[in-house]
Parts: sequence; C-alpha cells; structure tokens
Amino acid sequence: MLKVPEHQVAGHQAHNGQLGPLIDDSGRFYKPLQDGKRGSKELAFYESFSSNPQIPDHIRRYFPAFYGTQLVEASDGSGLRSHLVLEDLVSKLIHPSIMDIKIGSRTWYPQASEDYIQRCLKKDRETSSLSLGFRVSGLQVYAGKEAEFWKPDRKLAQKLGADEVRLVLRKFVSSNPSADPDSNPDGSFTSSVYGGSGGILAQLMELKAWFEDQTTYHFNSCSVLLVYEKEKVLKGDSGVEVKLIDFAHVLEGGGVIDHNFLGGLCSLINFITELLPKEDEDATKTFQDNHKICNGMENGH
Amino acid sequence: MLKVPEHQVAGHQAHNGQLGPLIDDSGRFYKPLQDGKRGSKELAFYESFSSNPQIPDHIRRYFPAFYGTQLVEASDGSGLRSHLVLEDLVSKLIHPSIMDIKIGSRTWYPQASEDYIQRCLKKDRETSSLSLGFRVSGLQVYAGKEAEFWKPDRKLAQKLGADEVRLVLRKFVSSNPSADPDSNPDGSFTSSVYGGSGGILAQLMELKAWFEDQTTYHFNSCSVLLVYEKEKVLKGDSGVEVKLIDFAHVLEGGGVIDHNFLGGLCSLINFITELLPKEDEDATKTFQDNHKICNGMENGH
Repeated sequence: MLKVPEHQVAGHQAHNGQLGPLIDDSGRFYKPLQDGKRGSKELAFYESFSSNPQIPDHIRRYFPAFYGTQLVEASDGSGLRSHLVLEDLVSKLIHPSIMDIKIGSRTWYPQASEDYIQRCLKKDRETSSLSLGFRVSGLQVYAGKEAEFWKPDRKLAQKLGADEVRLVLRKFVSSNPSADPDSNPDGSFTSSVYGGSGGILAQLMELKAWFEDQTTYHFNSCSVLLVYEKEKVLKGDSGVEVKLIDFAHVLEGGGVIDHNFLGGLCSLINFITELLPKEDEDATKTFQDNHKICNGMENGH
Repeated sequence: MLKVPEHQVAGHQAHNGQLGPLIDDSGRFYKPLQDGKRGSKELAFYESFSSNPQIPDHIRRYFPAFYGTQLVEASDGSGLRSHLVLEDLVSKLIHPSIMDIKIGSRTWYPQASEDYIQRCLKKDRETSSLSLGFRVSGLQVYAGKEAEFWKPDRKLAQKLGADEVRLVLRKFVSSNPSADPDSNPDGSFTSSVYGGSGGILAQLMELKAWFEDQTTYHFNSCSVLLVYEKEKVLKGDSGVEVKLIDFAHVLEGGGVIDHNFLGGLCSLINFITELLPKEDEDATKTFQDNHKICNGMENGH
C-alpha cells in the first residue's frame, strides 16, 4: 500500500533499501520517527502544536496536518517502525515545482551536544546559511513535457551565493529553468507565483508577522517549503503554497521570539521582493496591512 | 580642554591612564581610533555612511554626527593619536539614563580571523546574545537626587536571562530602579519613554523597517543606545533618543539584509512591546503605519 514519494527534494529518501518517508494513496505522508531524542522531539512538537489553542487558524494552515503515529513497515526492510502520519503536501499535484529552504543563519542551539553544535556550525559556515540567513536544501522545477523536472544538485544548492540564489529563485518561476547559463530564465510565473494576495510573498509576510510575536516555539533547523503547480497557475487557479516542515529540533521559546528564524525569513522575503515588479510588491503590502488589521480584529485585539 | 566623559556605560574608559574616549565642552566626543584594521574600518564606515546618498534622513538621525578625525593627546598619555570626532550624544543632558544594548545573536562574521571568531562565539554563548539575540552591555538609570545613578555591574548585565532582562528594562523606566528585589520597580516612565509617537518603541520600529530593506551594511557587533532625561520626560519634553553606535566591525552587506541585526532588534522590540499597556502599543503601531506610508511617499515610492 505504501510507496516511495515521487516528489521529494531534500532529506533522507527511501531509495535502495534506505530509511525514508513513504506515502499512501489517500494523501498521507509517513515519516519514520528518528531514533532517540530527535524522533521524540518531533512527535512532541506535533502533539503540542496540534493541541495548542494559541495558534491562530491563519497560521495553522502553514503546517502539515498531523494524524498521530502509526507502526508501518519501514522502507529499509528493518520491520515495523513508528512513523509520524502527516499530510502529503503534494498528493494532489501532478507536476509540483518545489523548493525546500532551511531557515536561519544558525541551525544549532545551546541545548544540543557540543559535537552536534560543532557539526552544524561547520555546515552553516560552509553553506549559505551564515551569509544569507538560509540555505536552499533542494528543489525541482517543472520544465514542461519534454524536459520534465529541472532538479539541480543538492550539495551545490546549499552553497549558493547571493547572486546565485537570486538566479535560482528566478528559475523556480521560469518556464525554462534548465536553460543554459547564457540564456536568461524567462521568469514567466514571477508575478503569479511570488506576487498577489495568495502568492508566496504574501504568505511569507503573514508568517513573518506571527514570528515577530510568537515566543512559544523556536524552530531550529526548520524549512519552508515553497510549492506550486504550473498548470494550475496558468489557469489562474492559484495552487501556490508555503509550508513549514521538519520539526526535529523545535524547542520551547521561553518567552523570547525566534530571532534566528525571523532574521532568515526576512532575508528570504527580501530576495523574493526584489524579484517582483514594484506594483506587485505594493499590492502585497497593502493586502498584508489590511489582512493584519482583519486578523487583529478577529482575535479581539 | 578635553576631559573624560561622565556618563559612559560600556566600552573602554579613559580612567587611570587607560586609553578611552574624551569629550570637549562644545558637544563633541573623541573616540581613539583603534589600532590596525578595527580603527580603519570604523573610520571607513563613518566616511561611507556620511557621504551615502541612499541613507534617508529619518534614518540618518539615528547615527551620531561625524566630524572627521583629529589628532589629540590620548588619554593614556601615549601622546598624539588620531581620534574619530563624533557627536557627544549626552552633552545636553544633566542626568541621562542610558542603556547600551549590543544587537545580534552573533557578534562575529566569516571574514574575521578564526581566533576572533572563537572568542566572540564563546562570549555570545556565555552571555544572553545567543538566547535573546542581544546583550545589555551596560546601563545607568537616574534614581533621583539622593540615590543619583543606579549602575549595575556590566558583567552581570551581559548575562541576564529573559525574565531578568524584562526586569532591567522595567527598572530603566522606573523612579526606584535600585529598589531591593522584593519591592517592585514602579515603571513610572514606561509609557512616556517606551511608548508614544516619539518614544523608544516607535524609533526602534522605524529602524526595523529600514533593516528589513537595506542591504548596504552589516552592523556586526553594533549597539543601540537608549537615552532619556528624567526631568525632560516629566515636563512632557520628550528627550528620548535611540542611537546606533560602535561601527568597528561593520561590513558591506553585499545585497543581503543584516538578518542577524534585524533578528536581534525584533527580539528587543518584542521585550519592550510586552512592557507597554496594550493601548500604547496600538498607538505606536498606527503611528508607524502612517509614518511608513508618509516616508514612502516622500521617497517617491
């Protein structure tokens, strides 16, 4: 019944007898609980988050739905193993373009082991995390019937400089993403995917407003997933989604905002804002201001 | 002619034959150029910043005025030395309450030497920088005629936890800052210093809006100085100022926002917002929104 997901751009993969996530036909995603603390921390986060009455609905929709845990046959043939049962974020899409961006210039946290801290710090310095405040963990862009998906090497994606990230963010919304370096990516979908009231920028801004305020969780080493379906976007059918994923290192915020995540998120927002024509940017901001006021009123502020 | 400043809460001090800043009677502050790269970097920043046409006037006022360099007798008796000539930020105040807060969870940067990086990282982990996104480098609070100034130990101030920072931020705007731990600081000046359209929160929010956008400078290891004069505040005469200081580690932004500074600034803003009654907070936000729109129009957006 369970199978290996077709559209995974980052993280462990259940290929060649390795341990990785599985999906079923009903739109659920089975993520193997990692051994020890990490697995239990991710489960604890989903349980805390799903029962936390302080999370507004307009924020909850940025997180995958959580359906508990289930013992299923692990993809590495090691037998039954506990899996988190989550929403499969791309189950309804045929040709999803996906980008996984790990947010934060720092992926470690003081409570971790010294060994873990040093490994993370080394990787943060070697990748773009330290300089840009985020790193691209992986991506695929639907390039049309013939070329299918453009899926650049993950290791390279993590180390992109500022100008290269700009180019990749533009390729992500182009109909010719795999074009050779001399021909420009056309950016055909820039406004329809990044801009507008339901676009990626508006969604990231809504998350940002929450992160400026929430002191409950610190989302260490967490990613935002940007997803869209070219066919839907062409039909004007939206199909653009932002989701937060990977919560194995989420800690309690202790009354302090997650300044590390927020800083990285603002940096990503700035990169995307730069790609948009000025009108789109203004439209998004106006939408956000109105939306914020509306949300404020709903919450009784 | 030159003398040791009376109101210095952090940094090197020109006491007992040590090298430190001096002031004159005309409102100028003489900061000895540090040896080697640091000094030249700070001078380079002031020169770049003061001649940069992209800095809007409403941002420029958060920086000390810069009057070039001058050879003056160093406070350590080592003879003539080049000094940065800056605005003395407290020259017109009689009993200034001052807090120096070093912003950013990370005070180092990739271009520094490995030795410097390791020393900063150690200090960031030992102080509140890593957890809160900032550390209190020092403060003095005017406590009235009898008690004069409350000036807690700097080393302790740097290591405060979240709840202790909340308390210190409240003491900073109290008429009884040095009260024993059992009696509450009265927070008499909370609204008049932190709140309102000219208050510290409104000024920090204006800086924040700039940091969300500017990619020219990265303000590594830079501080915000919060200053007010109790007598002026009591007269309804404002006298509340926010300034950025200490630019020995400013680097070019390279097209990326200063996500480290921005994250820490947002964390500080959240602490101060929590101290304000809800009405003040809303008033500040409304002011900010209007102000942003006005600034946008002035700049032709």
